Amino acid sequence: MVVVIQCKDQVGLVAAISAVLAGHGLNIVSIRENVDAERGLFFARLVVEGDATPLLSEELRLVLPGGATIHVNPEPLKKVAVLVTKEYHCLGDILLRNHFGTLSATVQCVIGNHAFLGDICHRFSIPFRMVSHEGKEKAAFEAALLSVLEDYDFDYIVLAKFMRILSPAFVERYPHRVINIHHSFLPAFVGASPYRQAFERGVKLIGATAHFVTNDLDEGPIIAQQIIPVNHTFTPIDMVRAGKEIETSVLARALQLVFEDRVFISGNKTIVFE
Amino acid sequence: MVVVIQCKDQVGLVAAISAVLAGHGLNIVSIRENVDAERGLFFARLVVEGDATPLLSEELRLVLPGGATIHVNPEPLKKVAVLVTKEYHCLGDILLRNHFGTLSATVQCVIGNHAFLGDICHRFSIPFRMVSHEGKEKAAFEAALLSVLEDYDFDYIVLAKFMRILSPAFVERYPHRVINIHHSFLPAFVGASPYRQAFERGVKLIGATAHFVTNDLDEGPIIAQQIIPVNHTFTPIDMVRAGKEIETSVLARALQLVFEDRVFISGNKTIVFE
Amino acid sequence: MVVVIQCKDQVGLVAAISAVLAGHGLNIVSIRENVDAERGLFFARLVVEGDATPLLSEELRLVLPGGATIHVNPEPLKKVAVLVTKEYHCLGDILLRNHFGTLSATVQCVIGNHAFLGDICHRFSIPFRMVSHEGKEKAAFEAALLSVLEDYDFDYIVLAKFMRILSPAFVERYPHRVINIHHSFLPAFVGASPYRQAFERGVKLIGATAHFVTNDLDEGPIIAQQIIPVNHTFTPIDMVRAGKEIETSVLARALQLVFEDRVFISGNKTIVFE
Amino acid sequence: MVVVIQCKDQVGLVAAISAVLAGHGLNIVSIRENVDAERGLFFARLVVEGDATPLLSEELRLVLPGGATIHVNPEPLKKVAVLVTKEYHCLGDILLRNHFGTLSATVQCVIGNHAFLGDICHRFSIPFRMVSHEGKEKAAFEAALLSVLEDYDFDYIVLAKFMRILSPAFVERYPHRVINIHHSFLPAFVGASPYRQAFERGVKLIGATAHFVTNDLDEGPIIAQQIIPVNHTFTPIDMVRAGKEIETSVLARALQLVFEDRVFISGNKTIVFE
Repeated sequence: MVVVIQCKDQVGLVAAISAVLAGHGLNIVSIRENVDAERGLFFARLVVEGDATPLLSEELRLVLPGGATIHVNPEPLKKVAVLVTKEYHCLGDILLRNHFGTLSATVQCVIGNHAFLGDICHRFSIPFRMVSHEGKEKAAFEAALLSVLEDYDFDYIVLAKFMRILSPAFVERYPHRVINIHHSFLPAFVGASPYRQAFERGVKLIGATAHFVTNDLDEGPIIAQQIIPVNHTFTPIDMVRAGKEIETSVLARALQLVFEDRVFISGNKTIVFE
Repeated sequence: MVVVIQCKDQVGLVAAISAVLAGHGLNIVSIRENVDAERGLFFARLVVEGDATPLLSEELRLVLPGGATIHVNPEPLKKVAVLVTKEYHCLGDILLRNHFGTLSATVQCVIGNHAFLGDICHRFSIPFRMVSHEGKEKAAFEAALLSVLEDYDFDYIVLAKFMRILSPAFVERYPHRVINIHHSFLPAFVGASPYRQAFERGVKLIGATAHFVTNDLDEGPIIAQQIIPVNHTFTPIDMVRAGKEIETSVLARALQLVFEDRVFISGNKTIVFE
Repeated sequence: MVVVIQCKDQVGLVAAISAVLAGHGLNIVSIRENVDAERGLFFARLVVEGDATPLLSEELRLVLPGGATIHVNPEPLKKVAVLVTKEYHCLGDILLRNHFGTLSATVQCVIGNHAFLGDICHRFSIPFRMVSHEGKEKAAFEAALLSVLEDYDFDYIVLAKFMRILSPAFVERYPHRVINIHHSFLPAFVGASPYRQAFERGVKLIGATAHFVTNDLDEGPIIAQQIIPVNHTFTPIDMVRAGKEIETSVLARALQLVFEDRVFISGNKTIVFE
Repeated sequence: MVVVIQCKDQVGLVAAISAVLAGHGLNIVSIRENVDAERGLFFARLVVEGDATPLLSEELRLVLPGGATIHVNPEPLKKVAVLVTKEYHCLGDILLRNHFGTLSATVQCVIGNHAFLGDICHRFSIPFRMVSHEGKEKAAFEAALLSVLEDYDFDYIVLAKFMRILSPAFVERYPHRVINIHHSFLPAFVGASPYRQAFERGVKLIGATAHFVTNDLDEGPIIAQQIIPVNHTFTPIDMVRAGKEIETSVLARALQLVFEDRVFISGNKTIVFE
């Protein structure tokens, strides 16, 4: 059983938490704990042997500072809505894992602003809803998205190569619940055609970053990053292809971490108990 | 300040430990804990804010099962003896880090069964002692080694490409205190000239493994492993060169982990709190 | 356009080949060439600008040693038969890429010795044929396999976690045309339950190897290898899961290399022009 | 023996080059060739069996377009000057490899704008010259640098964590002969204290890039890049330490590639025949 706790830091928290668990006869198999000293925040993930009693959560609350977030035995299968445009690589991987029960989540629906990926969703018997952005202002487009999203129950929204930028008003509705994936370069390339620029500069690596979407100045807390090597024989198209491989892999890893309750957010960064 | 604890597992250990720390007004910045359920062993590494009092270790002992290993504020600079033969790559890296104070250890002496690496030790003002194996039975060679080792005070023996196999009797004197590095292949190659075999088979990776030396049937608990890509353009000599690069890197990483008290041994495996 | 050539080595081959290409007004965009000096074999892959004329292949043959293998503008979409058992991870990835046209091949059929993966094939509109091994001697099982295979036209057989060992007689029918994927460990673990053994030994890496299947003493020429890091928090089940991730990734990479005519076989090793 | 050629592209170059080599009875062991189609440039690196005759270079020139760069059997030991400030990690690695003859180059001198690294140079019997920047305008500082550099004969200047920005006038004197190493981040961090920013953002990777220094708008052609994983337990100081590990490794790799004549520059990118 997993117990995750987030609260203000103070002396004696681990002692207090573990005393409550011991009082319930629960043995701590592993504990990961981290204090963000700058923000005075405490984060812990415990794997314990034994079953939760209904009182455990309340007893933990009594010994923790006010405002603590406590999840005892969180739902192992998170519910997700997936937003896509036309690229299949991340969605296909998610649908496969979902289909075979290895996603640590269940896909409730896929929403696309193009029709193209509807077919693959149907093949996996997953509801696909199209919400076109064409001819709509951003506000109207997002209102249409929200209207469709309201038909489903979900814990997270996964942007699986969704190529529209979401407004602050939209993002605020789902704090720490929207996950995005994008390519990354060393050095960073500003402006259009980053792969073209990467080709021109002869980069030797292409990266991908999975992150929570926030309204902070930059891209939000990073969950996972990884790179794939490229070389001078790669055309811009080859680089795009390599980028898709690493995007698929990094998003899969990030989703696994989030869905297994291994990721906490502190300010603009994550604490990941891998 | 770091506190490391190893003992028999039982319910309530984290509660007991953290209560003692809280009683001393020490705040736990991070805690890494792991239970080897099969062996019933508990391992923890805590980073705490505040200074140790002389009583802390004894108070911890009172709340832990008999036979616990407790290190409060372990010495941040371990003492090491390094054994070498002729290859410079691992020794050179160790001497550089030692010289500039980034090894988390201090090299007390280097012992070589050849004279070749004496010069580089002298350049770094590190004692070099030659103990030739030539014309000696293994028992006599090891007796000579031990005689030289006795001149120094050390926590660990690092085999930095020491090309003699140590006898069980020798290894038993230094339980969990001898660290070795060697190349590794996928698949494994038995017998002579593994690099030649790796070349013949066209392997695409060459690995290195740093491990504690034990008298178990195989190589002892693994501390760190990593690989380096190779390809068909590599001659056997190029593969040896690649192997040296990855050996240097993996040994450096393993030593850092061990010297920072991040590595525990449970049975024939390690628990590494990276 | 791609031109691939394999023949006995002799002085002047590149000159002869490139003279023929120049005579056809073809510009060499890139050339990868390798000589296996021990076997006296020459391998080349050229990317050229311009279109092949029917005579090009014959003119090349005139200037090359007898017995040369010459492919001018090889078919960019190879045909493949996929053999599976119950694990979905490699097959699912292949079916996705096949469906979206990024496999550099077309899947002609999937043959399983269990029924389980039939459903996913049907969802992708790919023929699935079940050939059970139960109650059959190996010879009878393979005869049944061959009988089904004869219904399809294919260049390669991909063993995508096919858990039956194929006999030398079967393998000989498809020289250099059967590709397999399996996990690999450092050190190698012989016998049953390798993941259990890897767990017991606390390995820090799990690898995967894609290779051609031959009747040589060991596993046949290696096409691609890669590793994924693991640590002491991984249960044996987690290690299996990590192994599947890296198997999927390595097989995908190997298939891309083979299907793009980048892989040559020399003795028991490959030459890969990445 | 190695032959490297760079010239304008035209049809038949490989034919022409290989015919000349065949005429000298030289067998091509491996050939790497690449055309930068956008710039119309041809690059080739050939490994041949046999010895060069004095005429080979001239005969090659006769069959190549005007202005070709031809190196037959280039000097295997390049001469280098190393510029440093206070950080030892890259310099130490270079000095070790230089000392043991594995650098593919010989270090002629080390010039520091601080005195700190003089000691390690002296330990390796390498001339160290201090040129302080203090109290000097950039022009005067660079004039002093040039004055010292003129005392030595060198093919390349390696900036091994040299923390002064060189002026365009300085860089122009050594076109494609100045090599730099620096850390890189995903995302990129502009302004002061990039490691502090990386820590605040919780990056999961720290990269390093080795490149030629040019006066182009950005950093010049990239030779090699690689990354090292980090996580939330890394303090900013730990991140700096990880950055130094990867800088050392990437610079070593880049120098090996350049010194072995495997790197060509085309526009603002490199072609690297690994």
